Amino acid sequence: MSTQYRAPVDDYVFLLHDVIAPVAPHMLGDLTRNDTRQVLDQAARFFEEVWAPLDGPADEEGCHFEDGAVRTPAGYRAGYDALCEAGWNRVSAPEASGGAGLPEAIGQAVREFSASACNSLGLYAGLTAGAHATVRRTGEPWMLKQIVPPMVDGRWAGTMCLTEPHCGTDLRLMTTRAMPQPDGSWRLSGTKIFISGGDQDLTENVIHLVLAKVPDESGRLRDDLSTVRLFLVPKRVVDPDTGTLGDRNGVVVAGIEHKMGLKGSATCTMSFEHALAYPLRESSQPAGSQRKSSAGMSGMFDMMNSARLGTGLQALSSATRAYGHAAVYARDRLAGRAAKAEDRTGGAADPIVGHPDVRRLLLKQASFLEAARALALQVRTLLDEPDDALHGERSAIGSLLTPVVKAFFSDRSFESANDAMQLMGGHGYIRDNGVEQLVRDCRIFQLYEGANGVQALDLVLRKLPAAGGHALAGFLDLIEATASEARQWEPLREQADALRQASQQIRACGQWFADPARDPYDAGASSSDFLAMMGIVACAWMCLRMSVVALDLLPAAQDRAFLERKLDLARYWFARELPLVSALRQRVETGAACLMAIPSERF
Amino acid sequence: MSTQYRAPVDDYVFLLHDVIAPVAPHMLGDLTRNDTRQVLDQAARFFEEVWAPLDGPADEEGCHFEDGAVRTPAGYRAGYDALCEAGWNRVSAPEASGGAGLPEAIGQAVREFSASACNSLGLYAGLTAGAHATVRRTGEPWMLKQIVPPMVDGRWAGTMCLTEPHCGTDLRLMTTRAMPQPDGSWRLSGTKIFISGGDQDLTENVIHLVLAKVPDESGRLRDDLSTVRLFLVPKRVVDPDTGTLGDRNGVVVAGIEHKMGLKGSATCTMSFEHALAYPLRESSQPAGSQRKSSAGMSGMFDMMNSARLGTGLQALSSATRAYGHAAVYARDRLAGRAAKAEDRTGGAADPIVGHPDVRRLLLKQASFLEAARALALQVRTLLDEPDDALHGERSAIGSLLTPVVKAFFSDRSFESANDAMQLMGGHGYIRDNGVEQLVRDCRIFQLYEGANGVQALDLVLRKLPAAGGHALAGFLDLIEATASEARQWEPLREQADALRQASQQIRACGQWFADPARDPYDAGASSSDFLAMMGIVACAWMCLRMSVVALDLLPAAQDRAFLERKLDLARYWFARELPLVSALRQRVETGAACLMAIPSERF
Repeated sequence: MSTQYRAPVDDYVFLLHDVIAPVAPHMLGDLTRNDTRQVLDQAARFFEEVWAPLDGPADEEGCHFEDGAVRTPAGYRAGYDALCEAGWNRVSAPEASGGAGLPEAIGQAVREFSASACNSLGLYAGLTAGAHATVRRTGEPWMLKQIVPPMVDGRWAGTMCLTEPHCGTDLRLMTTRAMPQPDGSWRLSGTKIFISGGDQDLTENVIHLVLAKVPDESGRLRDDLSTVRLFLVPKRVVDPDTGTLGDRNGVVVAGIEHKMGLKGSATCTMSFEHALAYPLRESSQPAGSQRKSSAGMSGMFDMMNSARLGTGLQALSSATRAYGHAAVYARDRLAGRAAKAEDRTGGAADPIVGHPDVRRLLLKQASFLEAARALALQVRTLLDEPDDALHGERSAIGSLLTPVVKAFFSDRSFESANDAMQLMGGHGYIRDNGVEQLVRDCRIFQLYEGANGVQALDLVLRKLPAAGGHALAGFLDLIEATASEARQWEPLREQADALRQASQQIRACGQWFADPARDPYDAGASSSDFLAMMGIVACAWMCLRMSVVALDLLPAAQDRAFLERKLDLARYWFARELPLVSALRQRVETGAACLMAIPSERF
Repeated sequence: MSTQYRAPVDDYVFLLHDVIAPVAPHMLGDLTRNDTRQVLDQAARFFEEVWAPLDGPADEEGCHFEDGAVRTPAGYRAGYDALCEAGWNRVSAPEASGGAGLPEAIGQAVREFSASACNSLGLYAGLTAGAHATVRRTGEPWMLKQIVPPMVDGRWAGTMCLTEPHCGTDLRLMTTRAMPQPDGSWRLSGTKIFISGGDQDLTENVIHLVLAKVPDESGRLRDDLSTVRLFLVPKRVVDPDTGTLGDRNGVVVAGIEHKMGLKGSATCTMSFEHALAYPLRESSQPAGSQRKSSAGMSGMFDMMNSARLGTGLQALSSATRAYGHAAVYARDRLAGRAAKAEDRTGGAADPIVGHPDVRRLLLKQASFLEAARALALQVRTLLDEPDDALHGERSAIGSLLTPVVKAFFSDRSFESANDAMQLMGGHGYIRDNGVEQLVRDCRIFQLYEGANGVQALDLVLRKLPAAGGHALAGFLDLIEATASEARQWEPLREQADALRQASQQIRACGQWFADPARDPYDAGASSSDFLAMMGIVACAWMCLRMSVVALDLLPAAQDRAFLERKLDLARYWFARELPLVSALRQRVETGAACLMAIPSERF
């Protein structure tokens, strides 16, 4: 049962061509509906047939650490080679670097399919894409020539190395150090943990992007971020002139973690021992300078932003696959009789899909998953806005929503995968049926790339005040535009008004956070609940957008049921999820008052 | 780290002697505070030292199925023997059957300690206790003499066998059959799945309590519950006169499940092959009669009710242990600096317990866990009300709250264990730190003993209308009594009013469900949200009860911090959880409208 996966091609064609492209033509360029369908049909077939069957067995087997190297589960090497051969790892990479140059929105669809089919295998390629994007942006010319192409075509992989045993979120505490050598080269030493794909047996080289501090002349490390820089550290040394692979660099895998899930992905402890390292470009910053900003980490921040969106999408992908299991089970499993005689099938029992509490679980999953998929694309359109006049405002809204995509998607995807399990009763808890693995896999996305609490702090401490607080206003303006449009459609009038009201609650909370009289602890106390409000409202916005499109298309539609389903999912979200917004606002406005009184030792 | 466990002895002494006993003296009899502390201190030491270290390794190892028999993880046999030797498996069993005859409330505390220390090992003993209680109630005199004593002292174990491969919740579909033989004996055949402790290597015999249908004269099974009866089926045959163990009965272990968690507990597929079976007593019901009631299952229902309370407590136990890990981590882990300069420790970073979002996670856990622990005892006092005049009403309230304890406790405990993990970031996701096991273990409690959706249906379809709907009114009267009392204390006045308002929302929903004009699907559509409302309000009730007691004791208290903490936890629950009640009521009142429109095949 765990190999069943059907990629949502119809949904993506609808989203890309009917929902997104009309308002953001830059997202698809000259790609026709037919082109999109052809590409996605091929991708779907590949991931359904080649990757999906690898997922369950890889979870059983896990990764191995033998003789200082990682061996991935059986089938991963062949699956990875097939991916690179078919080119699905570089769909939206630039043609100049060897990619197919298709729009990023297509790349996003393909990444969802790959993560649904086999999330842990997809992560190796996903991290590589993030890493080569960073090298393209901040690398020296020789790297663009010798490092990027083999990463794009998949012969080499990439990682990002931030966390250390004693510090994750608080990178000020890092002790990994990089020292300039008399010959002009740099050498880097230190221990990094939780490095996804730190080693594997899929590629002939690994390009590590490593954060490290540059010590002052007396060898001391500052306890802030001012001397932090991002370095490129290859597993095997690369000749800058020819790209030829040389000796092993001072990069040692010290071990792998045994984890709750995502077991096909090797989570490594990496020991860098006087490793040859190359600083990546950034605003000039001499070693040991007094500057306190974290400008030296800018390349890493870009990479992390893209990783945060990727993490939201990974979470959605696991939850989507879990929903597929649950839907099949709900249609097949017989228990109880329908409460209305006219709905009974006549057998000894009816399929449980007819029971309202089961439908509640299914609709809760489906309405979230489809709204979130739309939102992920919407955020992409905002970040990639090409119109110079609009770019600043739109990308600020995209940045505002980035922590929401990471945290709300991963929180709700975990809930969603658990709802899939819940619907299956005890059959969901046993390993054979595939869903319990998806629940375990899904749990990591709330934790890595910055735990969700940190995302919420980023939202209220950085993104809300950024650019004079205009990003939130811009977001609410976009919502207002959709609400106005929806009010033209009588069946959507009530939802449009409800969305406006919810939007007002967001605005009020924004003002609450901005109040200069706030207790310094209030922001942190209310950040997670505010992020949840933002997620619910953003998904409601997408539901309403899709409903407008669906009503518009219905009169001429061949597949009416497909569009009516969008309306039904929106109805569910508005009836059952949007009411949470007022309760969350109440929570937000309680602030830190009820949190800080207890002495620490009493916990 | 996974062996750390500190049993909450102080909390139980407070709950039993300060909160519960003053209003329900029957719960403790003549047990003094000192007696209670002595017993619980001993129990705590046993489970902390002997059982807690078994939990992690048993999860790694799991159970084995070899040569048709189950082998439990290393150390389980010794741990189980030590339990029985110390008598912790029979603390509250009647002295007449070989138990210690202590109050059930003490038994409940001991069961929490055992489940926190090693939930999967505790389950073997817990199921046995449920089974011998059923045999004591419904068994023949020879069983009381020959079967019950070895179960009470732990030499034999017990199970309950309901689920079959094609049916769990809907027992009408059962095909296991029991046939009377010409010699007056019964023989039982069929396959049962998901049987916890179906086999093990801890005891010399296993007493299975098995639901089966009695076929009519032509051998046909009815497709309803009218011919269902409960049978006692020993693994090894027992001589009714002497209690001597004889041959193996026709009871075969066909296999064990590979599960997400609770891996030390063997979940067995049991094949009954012409097994010697003994009907348990019940209202007379000749085989093949036309009666459609499920009276034949009454013994099983009693057992399941007790199992539902036990499951709620098991969930709480895992979450309590997870909280212990999280609290230690929060005090030890350094990251970031406190938002207020005066709260900074002066080091490079401060303990994360000082950050408000971390406190939010800790308080969310602690306030739930302590309110729920109180509620579990409160429900016990209601069910065990000895005053004949009050018994009917009080036990109806206890029954009303039984599905709430099962479902709300398990839903929130899973959330709570996940909050513990969340606070630990990536360190929570790796196996070494113990929390990820507790999350996996905890997940089962939402599923077994009737999935939580079924509990919610039981609440609205059976418990709300029972006895003319008076149970809900009685529950709300108890709440009103606490609110009135709390209003005498100025610092609690606001909370008392908030609880009254929430109680009105419950009452309104009760009326909504009782409306004869309801769509037949409405009850199922809104049952789960109503159950969540009941849980939140019931916990708020307990918070307020404990606050009243705390304020009363504070002036003369030695450990003021202990009591102030209760007030802080209550403040958190009222500020952050109680506001959800209105949102949930809004959901309840949307009913089935947004659920039933989509055609089944569109999921």
